[in-house]
Amino acid sequence: MCAPLVMDAVNRALSRRAFLGAGLGLLAAPALAQAEVPGKAFRRVVDLTHELSPEIPLFPGAEPMRITTLVTVRQNGYYGNRLDLWEHSGTHMDAPAHFAEGGLTAERLPVERLIAPLAVVHIHEKAAKDPDAQVTVDDLLAYERQHGRLPKGAFVAMHSGWEARWRDPTAFLNQDASGTLHFPGFSPEAAAFLVEEREIVGVGVDTLSLDFGPSKDFKAHLTLLGAGKYGLENLANLAQVPPAGALILVGGPKHRGASGGPVRALAVW
Amino acid sequence: MCAPLVMDAVNRALSRRAFLGAGLGLLAAPALAQAEVPGKAFRRVVDLTHELSPEIPLFPGAEPMRITTLVTVRQNGYYGNRLDLWEHSGTHMDAPAHFAEGGLTAERLPVERLIAPLAVVHIHEKAAKDPDAQVTVDDLLAYERQHGRLPKGAFVAMHSGWEARWRDPTAFLNQDASGTLHFPGFSPEAAAFLVEEREIVGVGVDTLSLDFGPSKDFKAHLTLLGAGKYGLENLANLAQVPPAGALILVGGPKHRGASGGPVRALAVW
Repeated sequence: MCAPLVMDAVNRALSRRAFLGAGLGLLAAPALAQAEVPGKAFRRVVDLTHELSPEIPLFPGAEPMRITTLVTVRQNGYYGNRLDLWEHSGTHMDAPAHFAEGGLTAERLPVERLIAPLAVVHIHEKAAKDPDAQVTVDDLLAYERQHGRLPKGAFVAMHSGWEARWRDPTAFLNQDASGTLHFPGFSPEAAAFLVEEREIVGVGVDTLSLDFGPSKDFKAHLTLLGAGKYGLENLANLAQVPPAGALILVGGPKHRGASGGPVRALAVW
Repeated sequence: MCAPLVMDAVNRALSRRAFLGAGLGLLAAPALAQAEVPGKAFRRVVDLTHELSPEIPLFPGAEPMRITTLVTVRQNGYYGNRLDLWEHSGTHMDAPAHFAEGGLTAERLPVERLIAPLAVVHIHEKAAKDPDAQVTVDDLLAYERQHGRLPKGAFVAMHSGWEARWRDPTAFLNQDASGTLHFPGFSPEAAAFLVEEREIVGVGVDTLSLDFGPSKDFKAHLTLLGAGKYGLENLANLAQVPPAGALILVGGPKHRGASGGPVRALAVW
């Protein structure tokens, strides 16, 4: 009943590239029939969120979530659970306050920042060869040569292919014998470029951390969150999203004083 | 930096009424300048989510959430909390499985149902006189006479004005001397009408429950969730949303086996 319908004209109207390319007259006749379903304004919806459970990969030292069933339909007439979790579990937000004293907590982020043009920077080819691969300034400039300048208010996501390891926490953390983690992230220089040279709302990764695994100083975190941007970690399904032209919808945490917390993130286009 | 921009043409393209009314040619010249900001495809974003905290109103018997700060920037270099909460706290979802054995849990709802045309049915005038007011079939038919038939895949929200009591849990629950709750909700007949005569994805209320306060049998819940629809309770700011023409974006729970859970819900148009 709720399958997404093709509503190309409106979808294309949401894409800057289509705007600039096709100009006016996008709302041609074929769109009208589908306009009777106004909610189906997007051709595709992709869930960028992993299932949250006690078995997911966590940063070393974090305690797994607990799900405790308090009532069931059979015994009580209704079903419900108590949840107990560390904020930075699963597909989740890092609010500026996570690393910046006095920074915005997640529930206070202006709501307009939760809907943003989504730029997906693919580094899965180099990450397949080097688990310590980072998104560099060169990667961002190469992205822009191909897809145009990062739009104002963009959310910039790294797709490293790491999400394929999600169901194997050992492979996802990828710790060496010394305990050092190895997985891709944003380089501090790329973080600085995004903060200083572009106008973004936040960045996301399909790994455990905005900084790559071996980082000891969390410089990308400090640069991004220190500038009031938010991060999303452990994003899913970025391989299914076009590099440009989609929007990200971030169902961010709304609890008081949130340093972050689980999100429901969707990509639509 | 991220204030919403007026992008009327695209916004109107998302509205069926505008489509049918204005027909083609919506993407006239004024839209083009703003098209450089594709993420700002909506003129307005309204947060339908109350802040979640230990002080919010809860259904009698539910234990308040706990927020425990584990680390701080000053002491540890980063800030984070542990959360402990009943799934049905704050602005939250009731998944079909909350009342229907074998029903869908929240994390398994098809993601397309989380983006829906939002119909807001205002009963705040009668609710101001009668705290036990209900959305009736007549209210739904009156809505349709004014705003057109409920679109396929709609999310139907009751605005009773009850959200104004949110910060006063005693007034929000409104228990009488016998312990009976008094607040508005959907009548069982209206729930049956929506399930049988229309194609909706779910319903929402600005009160504690889909059923009105005095309900003993939770018939509206059983009818709606039993038919695979989801509910949202304790919605905020519905007074700011037009009766027709907006979309609801539901950042629903993604934890395993979710009977529901806190959501981040936004209205956009």
